[in-house]
Parts: sequence; C-alpha cells; structure tokens
Amino acid sequence: MSEADAPQAALKQALAAIQRDIDSTFDALLPVPGDPRDRLVEAMRYAAIGGGKRLRPLLVSAVAQMFGVDRTSAVRAGAAIEAIHVYSLIHDDLPCMDDDALRHGKPTLHLAFDEATAVLAGDSLHAFAFEVLSDPAMSGDPFVRVELIRTLATASGANGMAGGQMMDIAAETASFDLPTVTRLQQLKTGALLGAAVEMGAILGKIPSEGRTHLRGYARDIGLAFQIADDLLDEEGDEAAAGKALRKDAAQGKETFVSLLGIERAREQARILVEQAVQHLAPYGAEADLLRDLARYIVERNH
Amino acid sequence: MSEADAPQAALKQALAAIQRDIDSTFDALLPVPGDPRDRLVEAMRYAAIGGGKRLRPLLVSAVAQMFGVDRTSAVRAGAAIEAIHVYSLIHDDLPCMDDDALRHGKPTLHLAFDEATAVLAGDSLHAFAFEVLSDPAMSGDPFVRVELIRTLATASGANGMAGGQMMDIAAETASFDLPTVTRLQQLKTGALLGAAVEMGAILGKIPSEGRTHLRGYARDIGLAFQIADDLLDEEGDEAAAGKALRKDAAQGKETFVSLLGIERAREQARILVEQAVQHLAPYGAEADLLRDLARYIVERNH
Repeated sequence: MSEADAPQAALKQALAAIQRDIDSTFDALLPVPGDPRDRLVEAMRYAAIGGGKRLRPLLVSAVAQMFGVDRTSAVRAGAAIEAIHVYSLIHDDLPCMDDDALRHGKPTLHLAFDEATAVLAGDSLHAFAFEVLSDPAMSGDPFVRVELIRTLATASGANGMAGGQMMDIAAETASFDLPTVTRLQQLKTGALLGAAVEMGAILGKIPSEGRTHLRGYARDIGLAFQIADDLLDEEGDEAAAGKALRKDAAQGKETFVSLLGIERAREQARILVEQAVQHLAPYGAEADLLRDLARYIVERNH
Repeated sequence: MSEADAPQAALKQALAAIQRDIDSTFDALLPVPGDPRDRLVEAMRYAAIGGGKRLRPLLVSAVAQMFGVDRTSAVRAGAAIEAIHVYSLIHDDLPCMDDDALRHGKPTLHLAFDEATAVLAGDSLHAFAFEVLSDPAMSGDPFVRVELIRTLATASGANGMAGGQMMDIAAETASFDLPTVTRLQQLKTGALLGAAVEMGAILGKIPSEGRTHLRGYARDIGLAFQIADDLLDEEGDEAAAGKALRKDAAQGKETFVSLLGIERAREQARILVEQAVQHLAPYGAEADLLRDLARYIVERNH
C-alpha cells in the first residue's frame, strides 16, 4: 500500500465497520414481533438494513472517537440519526412526493410493500430514533440523552430537514437564486449532517462553546456534499447511484450546477473541502478520519 | 346549578381552558417564518390550531395538577402529545391510508393544501413534539425531559400507536377476534392516552412504581374511549363528529360493537369507566377531574 492510499484505506475500513455495526444495531433493535404488526416491522427492516453509505453514523462515531467515547454509544446514536435519514427517504420516495422507484439499488418501500405501510414505517422509524436516544442504554447521563434528542429533533423538523424538503418542493415552481438554494440545502441535507457532528461532540461531553470548529467543519462538508450530489445527479451513473438521476433538471429546479455551471461548482466543492479541513487545525491525528471523510465526500461516485 | 351538574361544569371549564391554552401554545411555538417554508408552517398551524377535544393534553394537565405541577409545564407537555396525535390524524387521513375528506369539521390537510405538504407537515409536527419536550423551557430537570420523551416515543412508534394503525389496516382483510381487537385498540388509541397520564405523573416526579393506580385508570379509560368511539361510529351524527362515520362496517372491520353488539358494548364501556374510577380510590378530591373525565368519555356525543 502506498502512503497516498493509506488514508483512503483507513476511511474504507471505517465505512465498512460502521455499515456492519449499524446493520447489526437495527437488526437487534427491530425484532419482528410475531403478531399483526409483522408487516410494519419487516418494512422498517427492509428500508433500514443493508443500504446506504451510513455517512451520518460515520460522522457521529468519527467525532465521538476523537473524544474517547465508547463505540457502542456512538453506534447507537448513529443508528438513531440514520433512522431519521431513512424515514425521510421513505417519505420522499412516495408517489405524492418524488415518486421514486429505486433506492439503494432495490425497489422503494411503497413498491416493495404498499403506500400505507411506507407512511407508517417512516413514522415508526421517526419515533424509533427518539426511543433509542431516550433509552437509558444510550447513556447513563440524562443530560447527554436529552441534548442528543434536542439536536436531532431540531435538525429534522420544520427548521431543519423537513423545512428544506418543503423549500425543495417550492423550487419546482419558483426560481431560486444562489443564496436561497444554499439555504435550502443547508436545511435539507446540511442540518442532519451538522447534527451528526454535534451528536458526536455531545457524547464526548464537549460543551456547546467548544464545538465551534466542528460546526464550521460540518457546515462546509454539508454544502460540499450537496454540490457533489448535484454534480453526480448531472454526470453520475444510475447503476452506481442505485437511484434515478437527472430529475432536478427535468423538474426545472435550480441547483448549484445549474446556477454555477459544472466547473465552478466542482471548484466550489473543492474550496469548501479545504475550508472544512482548515476548521480541524486545532486537532491532531485524532481528526484524520474527518479530514479523509471531507475529501471522500466530493470524490465519491455515488 | 344543581349538585349533579357541578362536576360536569368543572369538566366543561377544564376542557375550555385546555383548548384555549393548547391553541395559544401552538400559536406561540409555530410562528410563520416568512420564507419559502411558510406553506409548511401554515399547514402545521391549520391542522394543529382550533380543532379537537384536546383530551390528551387535558389528561396530562389533570394528572399534573394532582401533584402540584405548574400549569405552564403541563400545557407544554400537553402540546407535545397533541402534536403527535395531530400528525397521526394528518397521515391517517391521506388517500393511501383512510382517504378522509373531513376532520374537525373542515377539509383534511391534504385537501386544504396538498398531499406532499400533508406528509411533511405531519413529519414536522412529529419532530416538533420532541423539540418541545427536549427544550430546557420544558423542565429544568433533564431526567424529567428525557422520561417524557421516552414515554411519548414508545407510545407512538411500532410498539404503540403506529403498530396499532398497522393492525387496523390488517383488520380490513383479516377477521380479528375480541382479544385481538382489544390489543389493536390498546395500541392504536390506548398507548397515547396512557402516555398522557404517565406524562402528568412524570412532571409530578412520581416514580414509576407509584404510577400503578394511574396506569390502571388509563388502561380502562383507553378501552372505554374506543368502545364509545365504536358506538358513535355506529349511531353518531356526522355533523357533530365533524368527520365521516360508519366506515368500519363498510371496510369489513371487526369492532367492539360488531363483536359484542350495541347493548353489551355499552355495558362494557360502563363497567370500564367504573373500574377506572375505582383505580382512583387512593386519591381524594384532587382526582375529581379524572373521575369526571372518565364518565364524559362514554357520554360524549362526538
């Protein structure tokens, strides 16, 4: 292995580890009850287990690890935020929303099951996130639990992810400028990525005023992530993505790519990643995984 | 006012007070942001403000009052559980679920707005409940906050309300017996009513082992409430109910009325209410509102 490959290898290993751990956490915490609710829990498992990059849980665990948090707690908190992400994808894929047929390379939940089950499975995963975080098994410290919950609830509601999704729907008929698209994306994807970083720091019992650099990092990778997503939507391969692409243009939505053009968008993503890495200057080698992750976010092909 | 009317008058007053307080709490906590998310917040307000009996908040505040909890905290916790109830109605009314056109005497949210907005407004009210409960303004004691959250998340997810809704969908094609219908209703409506009582006791800092009698009360009024609902569905007036009735029979669902007949169902509800009142024997006049509420639940006409 060359030295240039080494960080990528560490990241690859961390991604594989978190994917394995999140799958086994969902598997353990979502047992099929053996009663008329089976179909609901099977739908939750179908959507939650075995798909996705698990970027949000990786962010939680990478930050938590910097502060010596035990891995079990980080993985549990990661499963909670991933449950929120998964529920939002289920609802987003519904016919009345994006009407998508493919997610993580398999039929979307409402096609594999039915629409009513998809609505309820999304709602149940939403509640599940807060069940996990409020459980004493999450942390013996109720203040840690309640701060995790507060961070995740705020990032996912009308002032976070759901608010961004609403702006995204409005973008089909309105013509948004760059500041408005930036705000939309900060809410739609940035809020939850920011919450992941914040949750890692909460587990590490870092007080709010000690999280400034990490927040700067999260803000920059959040935007870089979305620009990379827009570039993949424009140039990517549907098979690698495991979902339909080039829908934004078809729906007449402004994106970073439509507003900046491919070259300037790519350059902007690169600048944001360098900025994100600079925010980590106060930290040593313990933040290397976050540095690698920032670079991976713009270099990934799905 | 005759003596027999006095308790009814006290309950009527308590209902009016909680309806006013829940409306003003939603109004204060859901300001329209003045940006492209306006439509989302307006939809949340449309569904949350000015409708419903507010039984769950009344249960929270009636129990909290028994233990000297300040009203502001009780009302906040009540708004959180009501937000969960409202989100479940929004999603339940969707075309892919019950496909209802009328709720609290006005068009359902997906008709007044659109389906995508209804999905997102439901999701946002779901998150809002946990934003409210996790906020330091809820309680200075993080343990109280996290216990409120744990109770509400568990009661609303796959092992509570959402699980009951899934069983309710299964009831359209399966032929459930009395124990299964009882279990279905304990999850679908009983879990959240139980959570309301539990949350009042948590605010009062009553330890779990001191809540046995209140849990018995909640279990009995939960079932009585559902039997009364089934009776109203069979015999009630759509204008007074503000929603479509007699859908269960049309969908071939077994209910307490279809399984027991009208007379035995009515008798069963009466027995449950008396049992519920007996659970309150350890308490004095401070539990009178709960006693009146139990009787109201089977006597109401909507």
